[in-house]
This record gives sequence, structure tokens and C-alpha cells, in this order.
Amino acid sequence: MKLESQRALADIRMRVQRDLTQFLAEQTTYLGEIGSELIPVADAINSFLLDGGKRLRPLFAYCGYLAAGGAEDESVIAAVASLELLQACALIHDDLMDGSDTRRGRPSIHRWFEGIHINEDLSGSAAHYGSSAAILLGDLALVWSNQMLHQSGISPAALLRSLATQDEMRVELMAGQFLDIHEQALATQSVARSLKIARYKSGKYTIERPLHIGASLAISDETRRQNYIAIFSEYGLPLGEAFQLRDDFLGVFGDPAMTGKPAGDDLREGKRTVLMAMTQDRATELQEGVIAKYFGAADLNLEGVEELRQVITETGAKDHVEQLIEKLTYTALDALNREEIAAPARELLEELADIAVRRSV
Amino acid sequence: MKLESQRALADIRMRVQRDLTQFLAEQTTYLGEIGSELIPVADAINSFLLDGGKRLRPLFAYCGYLAAGGAEDESVIAAVASLELLQACALIHDDLMDGSDTRRGRPSIHRWFEGIHINEDLSGSAAHYGSSAAILLGDLALVWSNQMLHQSGISPAALLRSLATQDEMRVELMAGQFLDIHEQALATQSVARSLKIARYKSGKYTIERPLHIGASLAISDETRRQNYIAIFSEYGLPLGEAFQLRDDFLGVFGDPAMTGKPAGDDLREGKRTVLMAMTQDRATELQEGVIAKYFGAADLNLEGVEELRQVITETGAKDHVEQLIEKLTYTALDALNREEIAAPARELLEELADIAVRRSV
Repeated sequence: MKLESQRALADIRMRVQRDLTQFLAEQTTYLGEIGSELIPVADAINSFLLDGGKRLRPLFAYCGYLAAGGAEDESVIAAVASLELLQACALIHDDLMDGSDTRRGRPSIHRWFEGIHINEDLSGSAAHYGSSAAILLGDLALVWSNQMLHQSGISPAALLRSLATQDEMRVELMAGQFLDIHEQALATQSVARSLKIARYKSGKYTIERPLHIGASLAISDETRRQNYIAIFSEYGLPLGEAFQLRDDFLGVFGDPAMTGKPAGDDLREGKRTVLMAMTQDRATELQEGVIAKYFGAADLNLEGVEELRQVITETGAKDHVEQLIEKLTYTALDALNREEIAAPARELLEELADIAVRRSV
Repeated sequence: MKLESQRALADIRMRVQRDLTQFLAEQTTYLGEIGSELIPVADAINSFLLDGGKRLRPLFAYCGYLAAGGAEDESVIAAVASLELLQACALIHDDLMDGSDTRRGRPSIHRWFEGIHINEDLSGSAAHYGSSAAILLGDLALVWSNQMLHQSGISPAALLRSLATQDEMRVELMAGQFLDIHEQALATQSVARSLKIARYKSGKYTIERPLHIGASLAISDETRRQNYIAIFSEYGLPLGEAFQLRDDFLGVFGDPAMTGKPAGDDLREGKRTVLMAMTQDRATELQEGVIAKYFGAADLNLEGVEELRQVITETGAKDHVEQLIEKLTYTALDALNREEIAAPARELLEELADIAVRRSV
């Protein structure tokens, strides 16, 4: 059964990839007609988007759609694939704000255009050209996300039903991102604040809202739809939190070959995660000294990363986060035990939960 | 008759302002419920948006709607008001990319948040906090633009008809913005390239596309709608070009008290406008020397601005641009002499043309 679910998810992922490829090919032609200077823009978004990613948001949305009784439908695949373009916007702007050099082992968009500026010996500041391009490419990805949804071919009624959730999801994402940059600027960390940021910036956006979009696309009856939306929140909110905790975890303990980011990158950035807030809460004076010395140090080397990892482990924060992930995942899976969620879709959602919180990426 | 048109436009502008105020008040409450840290975000967009602006895009869209036979309708006012939020996104990101300190005589968004960081003595780099906030506030304004349109209360059929143009307009805007930053990085200027940038970044986006949106909202019959769209292009494309040329002109010769920007700001920025490309094309060796010395110099003082203005005038570029604006405006107004455009709406569009290309702002 597990193998069957994995195959079904791989099939959805393939169809999402197919639709993204086709949409981007059309946009590349369109931009090229405006001006050949725009070809690098289309190319950059193409390779950024088509080279990787787990497609979690389209998968949750489509499985939510199936779980809510929707029938297999290629236009719904195109509609949910558009969420990957929203995610591209978030990542492109996030990498720029974080000053990240890489994404999935390749240069981030601002670095990519900085490289174009240098290679083509253009005038002015290469860094400024790179960051301007990243701002605009993120904006364009956000605009394309709407366009791909509008052109997906789903029924006008389904489109109209899903727009309110689409909008709410986008506002929550931007609100969560702002809370995050504000948190980075505060003097102290807080577990409660970090949990809220994780919920808005990542949990709701990655899991709960895509499931709600799936329900909106599948169900026209208001009462029935609200029932599924409530069930999906029971499953999606705790799972979203577990997903973000796992992400924090991988940012510290993850294998660079798997994450596509240098080892301990979140520690070098001084990222205010729930994991770090818990560590700070539990740290002895000596451990606080290690944190003060290494956490957020731009020149942090592997030795420093290892010292910080040891502090995170020794305070018990690492174990606590692992247990929390397990508990939240259990709560999420428990919410699927309802007659409203038919067996095949339940297995897809179980498998997706496993993908969202598993130890490797 | 002119006075009557001016009153009608002032009335539309007031209703647009009312709807923006109401929408933003609702969003402020919503953001405040997520977290009090988000109140400055809502406040900043509020004052950025409600303190000024000619509301050209909503005015063109609503007058296009009336000209295409639409009846007065408050939900259409809300739908076209949403274009101001798209414009807010463009301006916030534009100011950040240009490094502009002010907008309409007040601090630009990135400077505003830089100021908050300093005043509240937050951690890390104030400039970085400011630019991150500006990226996210621009994104949020773009998302709100869609949300305000979706919630406007226009009929589902009208909304669906207008979405394709809304999307196309947004893609064109981002494409034009990219062409602009790319142009700044090239070694030489070109009148043809600058004209194309002006068309995408400004002309189509400010005038032609809003008119098309108006036609989409007014007319359900495909053939009739296409007829109006063609007429609106005949009027909107030349007028959009004239509008951008006037903008270039004001960036060099405008009164700071009216533009809200320091005198000769575009010269200090080294902005690659059509006006400057024409000047370069006509400059003698001596004049080229003056341009090389002052154009794009960050420390350009009023004396240097005056020397550059003299070159722009003496090459004949200033007169040529004035004549071009006049000719393009005449072509635009001529397109209104058709039976499809009824008298009251024609007068509104004539008055709007005057506002778009007049010498003061």
C-alpha cells in the first residue's frame, strides 16, 4: 500500500512538472517577443524551478482535492502547480534578504545575475544588478503564479471558490516573512514568537492552506466544504509545525549533499529558529558563551558549527524538538481517522506527512 | 464642459480613495490580529498610499469602463482602485532598486523602516532591515491588489473577463522594469531601447491596460469588447508614450515642490530616459564632456544640474521631446473622434489626457 501511495505521489509530481515546464516554455516565448534581454530572466526562473524541489504545496493541494472527493483532473493539476511559482517568489526574495549564495547547490538568483553582470562586463555595481534582478524575478514569479492558476482550465466556479484562500495564503506568507525579519532584529529570542513565525511563514503556507485550496476546488457545497476545511486544519496545522521544526533541524544537523546548503548554514546566518530559542532557554552560562561566540558569526567554520551542535544537543533542545515533531505528526495522522477521508486518499496524506517530516530531504 | 469633467474626475478619485481607505483599514485590523509587530507594516502602506498620487490608473480604468458603456457602479470603483496597490508595489520596489530616499516628499519605504530600526535600537544592520521590509511590503501590496480586486463585488463574469488583462499588465510591468535595470547596466544609450522600456514600464501599464480592464469590466460581448480594446489602444499607446516623456521631462526640469523629489534627481541617478538618449545622440564633443562629467554623479549639485539642463536644451532634445509629446497627444485625442465614444466619456478622456501630459504634476 505504501509503495502504491509513493507511486501515486510520484505520478502527481510528474504531471506538476510537465505543466510547469509547459507554462514556462510559453512565458519564455512571450518574454522573448518583448525583448531578447528578457531571455536570461525566463531561463533563470526555468532552471530555478525545474531543477528541484519536492513540490510539497502542489502535492498537498492535489491530495486535499482527492481526499475531498475530487475526481482526477488535469486542469486541477495545472491549478495546484501554480503554487510552485508562489514558492519561487518566496525563495528568490528570501535568499536575497538572507544574503544566501546558494539554493539547492546552485547559485541563488541574485548571485546568478551578479555573475551575468560580471561575465558580460556590464556597467555599475554587479551586486546591485543582482539584487534588482532578484526583486523583479520574485515579483514576476508571483504574477505568473496567479496567471497560471487563472489559465489552468478549471471551472470558473472552482476558480472563484479558491481565490479567497489563495489570497489569504499569500498575505499570511508575507506577514510571516515580515515577522521573521523583525524577529532577527530583536535582542532576545522567544520560543513562542518563533513558533508563530514558523506557523505563518511555513506551516500554514506549506500544508494547511494548500489542503484548503484542494477542498475549495473539489466541493461546491458550502457546508460540506467547511467540514473538510476543518478536518484539513486538524491535520495540517500540527503537521505544518512539525515540518518547520524538521526544517530548523536540517538547517543545523542536515547533510550539505542533501540540503544543497553549506553545513550549519542557519547557524552562520544566526537564524532565529524554534530549535535555537529552545536551546537559549535551556543553556547554562557556559553554553550561552559558546552561543554568543559562534551563533550568527559570518565566518563560522566547521569546528564552530560542531561546537554549537554540541550545545544544542547537550541542552536537550535537540531531543525535545525530535519528540515534538513525533508528537505533532501523531496528532496530524490521528485527524485522518474519520469516515470523511476515504482510504486511498488517507494513505496519500499519510505518505505526504512522512515526506514532510522525515530526517533526510 | 471642462469644469464638469474635472468635477466628475475628482468625484471618481474621491470614491477610489474611500475604497482604498476602507480596504486598508480592514487589512490593518487583520494584520494586527496576527501580531502587533505587523502594525507598522500596515501603517507604512497606509500612509504611502493614502497621502498622495493622482490615481491615474483607476481613473483611466473607470473612464474606459464608462466610455465602453458601463453604468456607474461602486463595485467597479473598488475593482479599479485595486490598481493603486499594484502601483504601490512597483513604487516601493522601484525606490529600493533606485536607492531613492524620498517619494512624494516623504521617506521611501526602505528608508522609513531603516528609521524604525534606528529609533527602536534594533539589532543588526538598519539598511538591511529597511531593504528587507521594502521587499516584503512591495510583495504584500501586490498580493493585496489581487485581493481587493477579488473582493470588489463585481460580477463573477466581469472578474473572470478582466483577469487575463490584469495578468498581462503585471507581466508587462515587471518585464519593463527588468529592461530598465538592464538598460542602466549597458555602456551606451539608445533612443529606440528607451522608448520600448517607457512603453512597457509606464505607457501600457498606466494608460492602455487600465482602459482595457475598463472595457473588460463593461462589455460581455466578445466582438464589441475587442472593438473598444482596439480604440483604447489607438488612444492609450501614444498617450502613454507622451505621459512617460513628460515624466522624463519633469525628472530633469520639474519643480521639487511639485514632484516631491530633489531637483534633477533623474540626472543624479543617471536614469536612461528617452530625453537623455536624444541628448546624447545630438551632443557635440564638448557637450558630451559635460554629460560624462555630471550625468549619474551621486554628488551632483545644483550647478551641475543646471549645466546638464543647458546641454539638454542646447542640443534641441528638450524642444524635440516637447514637440513629440504634443504630437503624440494629438494622435491620442484624435482616436476619440468616433461614434463608439459617447460625448460625456470623451470629455473625461480628453481631460485625463491633459492631466497625464501637463507640465506640472
